[in-house]
Amino acid sequence: MYRLFYSPGACSLAPHIVLEEVCRPYELELCSARNNGEGTGAPAYLSINPKGRVPALAGVPGRSGGTEGLLTEASAILLYLGRRFPEAGLLPADPSAEARCLEWLNWLSDTVHSMSLAQIWRPQRFVSDPALFSAVTDKGHANLKEQYAFIESILSDGRHWAIPQGYSVADPFLLVFWRWGGKVGLNMAKSYPAWTALTAKVVRRPPVWRALEQEGLHAEPELAGLRDLPP
Amino acid sequence: MYRLFYSPGACSLAPHIVLEEVCRPYELELCSARNNGEGTGAPAYLSINPKGRVPALAGVPGRSGGTEGLLTEASAILLYLGRRFPEAGLLPADPSAEARCLEWLNWLSDTVHSMSLAQIWRPQRFVSDPALFSAVTDKGHANLKEQYAFIESILSDGRHWAIPQGYSVADPFLLVFWRWGGKVGLNMAKSYPAWTALTAKVVRRPPVWRALEQEGLHAEPELAGLRDLPP
Repeated sequence: MYRLFYSPGACSLAPHIVLEEVCRPYELELCSARNNGEGTGAPAYLSINPKGRVPALAGVPGRSGGTEGLLTEASAILLYLGRRFPEAGLLPADPSAEARCLEWLNWLSDTVHSMSLAQIWRPQRFVSDPALFSAVTDKGHANLKEQYAFIESILSDGRHWAIPQGYSVADPFLLVFWRWGGKVGLNMAKSYPAWTALTAKVVRRPPVWRALEQEGLHAEPELAGLRDLPP
Repeated sequence: MYRLFYSPGACSLAPHIVLEEVCRPYELELCSARNNGEGTGAPAYLSINPKGRVPALAGVPGRSGGTEGLLTEASAILLYLGRRFPEAGLLPADPSAEARCLEWLNWLSDTVHSMSLAQIWRPQRFVSDPALFSAVTDKGHANLKEQYAFIESILSDGRHWAIPQGYSVADPFLLVFWRWGGKVGLNMAKSYPAWTALTAKVVRRPPVWRALEQEGLHAEPELAGLRDLPP
């Protein structure tokens, strides 16, 4: 049985959704990303996963720095689940369409999450002096706006999902970033209508909503409002 | 025919190597990453690839923000080439081994490249004020040392390649980061012996050496020295 180490609303939400889509039962293990001294920063977790991050999925053969069977990196977990459960149809079999999926995952993960959003939420990764944190955060907000505009431009070309071939593991990942946009003060519905329309279709999927309920996010007005919009 | 937009020694070196491994002929198009006003920052390139980065591979069906058929993101290109040319055996067919490959690609790409190395080489991405660049760079060096120690610890567990199953697209990517370590002042051979042993095996592969020659890197003493080491 798989066990997913997650923190509510973190990027672990995307693999959590995909587990709901493809493979139940599985186990969830809460590991808060909020406090570096506990949760993902606690010695007990670091002994399992030296990266000290979520998501991590236990139950995948192999080892890469953590305990045996622990797979890290959201993109790798999403690709793995898509490949492992082909009957769910969440990852195209065609190499070029699969690559387009991974192009989304990798760019969201590195340029948007590890750079811009980390600047806003984890400035201590970029400078040691707390007096400089606000300079890092300010630049993070500027970077993020450029990147979110780019996302909207891609999603505005008439496609219905992240890749034109259909719903894939990239769409739950885009939902995570859509929600984060609201958390950092962006008006997602107004400024990013194509992305918002896609997100509305994602949250209406029953497995997605179950994952949101399990993480306690279903009561957030932005998500609940999207679900209640007329299709 | 594929066309790879590359800059000598940039992370585009990994897809370049893999193209040499799997698929000749292909075309190379030089697009220097050194100067933001030209090369990757030039209007002509930005109209092809709005991300303004290399690598980008033309000739892959689909579109995601750039021109039709342009695939971006080193990880996505590496996975695509591995999948598209299975006879080369550079990407395991087993989902869990493939996921271990991608776990390497994604972590190197986001945590090591987009965070730490960008802090050292592109501090302007993290703060606007040039007076603060050195604070960003200093923290980047500290982050990088932790991450390189982690790489060495994984590669020291007895495996011969990035994943125990054999040579894969992850190994040329590790070569790129090994070379970068030297560029930022680390003594790679002394401090990272397992990683250096792996890199020596990589550079001895004829397709790898051809790519290094084509990028003008074969004369670098560190790489030439590795090639001449007794196996």
